[in-house]
Amino acid sequence: MKTKVGIIGGGPSGLLLSQLLDLKGIDNIVLEKHSREYVLGRIRAGVLEHGFAALMREAQCGERMDAEGEIHDGFYIAEGDKKRRVDLAGHTGGNSVMVYGQTELTRDLYDARSKMGGKVIHNVEDVTLHDLKSDAPHITYRDGDDIIRIDCDYVIGADGFHGVSRKSIPKDVLKEYEKLYPFGWLGVLSRTKPVSPELIYAKSDRGFALCSMRSQVLSRYYIQVPMSDKVEDWSDDAFWAELKARLPKEVAAELETGQSIEKSIAPLRSFVAEPMRYGNLFLAGDAAHIVPPTGARGLNSAASDIYYLYHALLDHYKDGDDTGLENYSEKALARIWKAQRFSWWMTTLLHKFPDNIPYDDRLQQTEMDYLFSSEAALTSLAENYVGLPF
Amino acid sequence: MKTKVGIIGGGPSGLLLSQLLDLKGIDNIVLEKHSREYVLGRIRAGVLEHGFAALMREAQCGERMDAEGEIHDGFYIAEGDKKRRVDLAGHTGGNSVMVYGQTELTRDLYDARSKMGGKVIHNVEDVTLHDLKSDAPHITYRDGDDIIRIDCDYVIGADGFHGVSRKSIPKDVLKEYEKLYPFGWLGVLSRTKPVSPELIYAKSDRGFALCSMRSQVLSRYYIQVPMSDKVEDWSDDAFWAELKARLPKEVAAELETGQSIEKSIAPLRSFVAEPMRYGNLFLAGDAAHIVPPTGARGLNSAASDIYYLYHALLDHYKDGDDTGLENYSEKALARIWKAQRFSWWMTTLLHKFPDNIPYDDRLQQTEMDYLFSSEAALTSLAENYVGLPF
Repeated sequence: MKTKVGIIGGGPSGLLLSQLLDLKGIDNIVLEKHSREYVLGRIRAGVLEHGFAALMREAQCGERMDAEGEIHDGFYIAEGDKKRRVDLAGHTGGNSVMVYGQTELTRDLYDARSKMGGKVIHNVEDVTLHDLKSDAPHITYRDGDDIIRIDCDYVIGADGFHGVSRKSIPKDVLKEYEKLYPFGWLGVLSRTKPVSPELIYAKSDRGFALCSMRSQVLSRYYIQVPMSDKVEDWSDDAFWAELKARLPKEVAAELETGQSIEKSIAPLRSFVAEPMRYGNLFLAGDAAHIVPPTGARGLNSAASDIYYLYHALLDHYKDGDDTGLENYSEKALARIWKAQRFSWWMTTLLHKFPDNIPYDDRLQQTEMDYLFSSEAALTSLAENYVGLPF
Repeated sequence: MKTKVGIIGGGPSGLLLSQLLDLKGIDNIVLEKHSREYVLGRIRAGVLEHGFAALMREAQCGERMDAEGEIHDGFYIAEGDKKRRVDLAGHTGGNSVMVYGQTELTRDLYDARSKMGGKVIHNVEDVTLHDLKSDAPHITYRDGDDIIRIDCDYVIGADGFHGVSRKSIPKDVLKEYEKLYPFGWLGVLSRTKPVSPELIYAKSDRGFALCSMRSQVLSRYYIQVPMSDKVEDWSDDAFWAELKARLPKEVAAELETGQSIEKSIAPLRSFVAEPMRYGNLFLAGDAAHIVPPTGARGLNSAASDIYYLYHALLDHYKDGDDTGLENYSEKALARIWKAQRFSWWMTTLLHKFPDNIPYDDRLQQTEMDYLFSSEAALTSLAENYVGLPF
């Protein structure tokens, strides 16, 4: 097979790029290791920044998002029994975020790809990237006993942290930066009414908690847990009890509990691989960087890469201008690192760090006190939360 | 002897409070362990925040400061060969700082105290605080073979980090928070023209450097050094060479070097003792808190305590209102912790941390990139640097 752009990974990043390119007549193929059902089964992010929502609309995939998603102009930060609102719109000249589950968004992208006859190939095995430094890279994968070859101009590595793309870059070329946190998030999805119309990020002496949602009837709650905890350690009852203990009393009193539909523990990790380009391979999303979920930068950082890649490929194929491709790694990384900084900052602001010295605990408390005493600090938080300019 | 307010420590904090109280007819005595010459020999801070300068004027000690001090509307942050200005006035609605040496300011305060016949007793030995929890505390000190007793309503502990005041608070009452940094500042004072009309804070791969000044003909330079370094390790030539290597080339080329008048190494430390009140003893300045000098919060934090104490004592003696005294510790500490936060932040932004993991080095770099890309972040820096509202 032959195509212009070979996209490794059929998650939201790969599908979005595929759709955007196809709309501009740029031929591409998406290769996904798993089935469509598997991809849609992953419960992930749910908060889309302003620019991401705009990109979904540009991809003609914004209709259901705009109908069913919810615009959030702000969120809450709770501390003990106190709950204070961060006015996102007020601090950013009217910007906001869109609450719409990654599952729904991915489904919309799949539907759009199907409708346009987009080439999305599932269940591919043994994906291998070849001749990335040459003008004629190619991809091979196994389909049963057959080895299929795809020749292309560019390969996009949007296959996540464990994917083959980043691993195809020689070790002496790639520099990896990583920071681990001494805790994870235990998340529960439940078919209950969200306790608050806007997200609540809660700092408590017992550890962090987050009240989020995917829709009016689907709640997503998280609590900080030690990395040694296992999902089996946490019954639904134990989870709800611990969540309530970390929320302001008035919030806890309103909390509607129910059976968990999904329950999982995710480690918190900060990770960046540089550069994001190797020859004609371009990394995007989790393949190149991971953030802790505090501050909702994960999926949004992937969308940021797709934004730059889309415009770079457009410039190449429509105007013969390669500046965007040449500058991709530098430009994408500049924004990625700012998202990394913000995610680290918000994680540090809200979590309980078991090894902190007492001074650092007071510093953390002061960061919160300063935040709510300063318009500048609130503006900084808000501009990062809704997404810095591309 | 009998007085209303017994002030331990004849540094700028103690003298300023003494002067302010005296102007309102509130009798007080200052006890200083050292001679006047010794106190004036200490080369310390040189950047006064807006509110501090106003307090000096209120103390009728602002005349020479306003004539000889310099208003700074901004400062520079250098990074490698790049130098970018932080517009303090532009980001704070016109606020600024005053560059005026602590030595000069202390001299003005001594002169004012002498002129008014203020009671400042030097070379007192064995200062001891008694009955602090009672309504009638008293202070004793030794003068030769005599033990002198001063009865007073209130004792102000403005005698620095190593002074007797904080140590007079029982250990089970006092909570101390401390953070050490793995480096110190080697400072040189020289009778040379400052290399820049405004301060330059320089981040470099070799470590931090600061170009400051005390007047148009008196320069104060610092470089970050390992705590294991000794002053004797650093000849003047070695100091100038290392300083130049850490500054942008264009700045280094302009640097006027000369013999050092003073050369010393100071460790960097963050420290806060809580509460700042014990019975009728009130701590102020370094007796209760220390910051690393980055961001110039040390003397300014002391002035902040004096501001609150002055108004609290005024309310007590003039209106019989003790609210200010009751709330002093909480109110002072709220502002102190914000100054601690800012000093930590600016120290972390600019220094080389030998034990940083690579991720944290990139985070530090990103903090700088974000700072200069965001009006909100610059505003936050500026509002802290000129001094948060009292």
